[in-house]
Amino acid sequence: MVAPVEGVHSATYFNLQAVVRPMRSLLFEIADAAQEAVRSTEGAFENVEVGMGADGTPTSRIDKIAEDAIFKVLDAKGNPLNVLSEEHAFKDFGKPDTLVVDPIDGTANAMSGIPFYSVSLAVGQRDLDGVRYALVRNLATGDTYYAAKGKGAFRNGEAIKVRRFRLESAQFLVYLGNRAARHAHGMAAMPRRTRSLGSTALETCIVAAGGADLHAVLMNHAIGGLRVMDIAAAALILREAGGELYDERGQRFNMAFDIKERRNVLAVGDPRVLEAFK
Amino acid sequence: MVAPVEGVHSATYFNLQAVVRPMRSLLFEIADAAQEAVRSTEGAFENVEVGMGADGTPTSRIDKIAEDAIFKVLDAKGNPLNVLSEEHAFKDFGKPDTLVVDPIDGTANAMSGIPFYSVSLAVGQRDLDGVRYALVRNLATGDTYYAAKGKGAFRNGEAIKVRRFRLESAQFLVYLGNRAARHAHGMAAMPRRTRSLGSTALETCIVAAGGADLHAVLMNHAIGGLRVMDIAAAALILREAGGELYDERGQRFNMAFDIKERRNVLAVGDPRVLEAFK
Repeated sequence: MVAPVEGVHSATYFNLQAVVRPMRSLLFEIADAAQEAVRSTEGAFENVEVGMGADGTPTSRIDKIAEDAIFKVLDAKGNPLNVLSEEHAFKDFGKPDTLVVDPIDGTANAMSGIPFYSVSLAVGQRDLDGVRYALVRNLATGDTYYAAKGKGAFRNGEAIKVRRFRLESAQFLVYLGNRAARHAHGMAAMPRRTRSLGSTALETCIVAAGGADLHAVLMNHAIGGLRVMDIAAAALILREAGGELYDERGQRFNMAFDIKERRNVLAVGDPRVLEAFK
Repeated sequence: MVAPVEGVHSATYFNLQAVVRPMRSLLFEIADAAQEAVRSTEGAFENVEVGMGADGTPTSRIDKIAEDAIFKVLDAKGNPLNVLSEEHAFKDFGKPDTLVVDPIDGTANAMSGIPFYSVSLAVGQRDLDGVRYALVRNLATGDTYYAAKGKGAFRNGEAIKVRRFRLESAQFLVYLGNRAARHAHGMAAMPRRTRSLGSTALETCIVAAGGADLHAVLMNHAIGGLRVMDIAAAALILREAGGELYDERGQRFNMAFDIKERRNVLAVGDPRVLEAFK
């Protein structure tokens, strides 16, 4: 039996449970379904070059399989949330809250045998600031990052927080390659350690858990930047762990629930890391 | 009962078994012991800043635990191999073959919550060309790469091979950060996708399995390059999968069993990727 939280009336406590627990359970159930769907196809996407489009976008078959599994769970629950996703744009079920979903963030990693790709689930209204529940799960390892607004952030059930920036052990996670801006490559040369891991949702969670100092997505403006589905969940997880997100001008980052928008971002643990660029 | 291979006398066949099977079994047993030792300390190394030296080298406690587990297995077998390792340099038991071991390649990843760190085990004589058995295991996921000279390379028991280079879907795995050479950062800007994953042994295995086109370790010469322990196992795995390793002048790469040597290397799947740099 769980004891009521001290100083909180039982009625209020159980009311909170009634609101918070079902949403947490729903997100974990969705993540389980996506993970099971991807696992059932294990290996089928690796080393497969067919379906790699001329623009370098890998086949979306693995994304489709994960997304179908997610929609199946939602359907079975009577679609309690509107859904924003790449495949379906905005699915309006007339609900107050929207699930912003990226079924696989890091598809190319999944196809390359790199165990760093995730499902990203955020629930809220309008924009990143309106997100109240967030879950990111590494589908290769099962590591799960979760946050509820005002309640902290967790990895596999244990509280996480960002780390203090120290120049001598700096680690940056930087989006690179021929679509990255020139200053992204400059940033990659600065710290003691640079990683480029290929999943913005998970990389932002690594910063949240104190495993790195920042994650940067700085793409050429002609090409774009990240989409709200890539960052909606991880942004809440990072903020609940004590971090913050900034745009290229150093302003606090926000982004509407709009699949057409593309933005560059710096996801930061300790803001002192930003001094290193001045 | 296993049927003798056609065209091979039973005596010869069983003689091969007697030589090959025990070495394969020994390497898997050692990998199991290292993995079990690291798992038993799960989480204890993450977010721990103490022990990060002034040079940015993380505490070697996790390495030590894995290495101790490895030596325990070898001791129990009567030390059938000499051992070359960071901790002990060369341990000479008067045997013809030497085990070149890196207990944890990617210690910083293990401490950062990035599921990409490995144990690397190579058995042979003198130098990389003398390696006859090789095993690399991702200790976070259990994915295991194995090769025996002339017998092919395998991931989790399935044969692997390098992929054909195609510019539009190029993926390079490049060592980066403030110890990397300037041209490493230039290389990171070239392909459609760049990753920097922090474990040379595993990154070379990803190339072997057709998940990327090359892995580059190009460090400033004042600082060094990789050590033979980092590459001894993965080099055989890559070659058995159809790839090759080159030094900075484009010569076929070899390296003595000498812990003091540090070298830069390009581990390549399809050699046509090298044309892209000309």
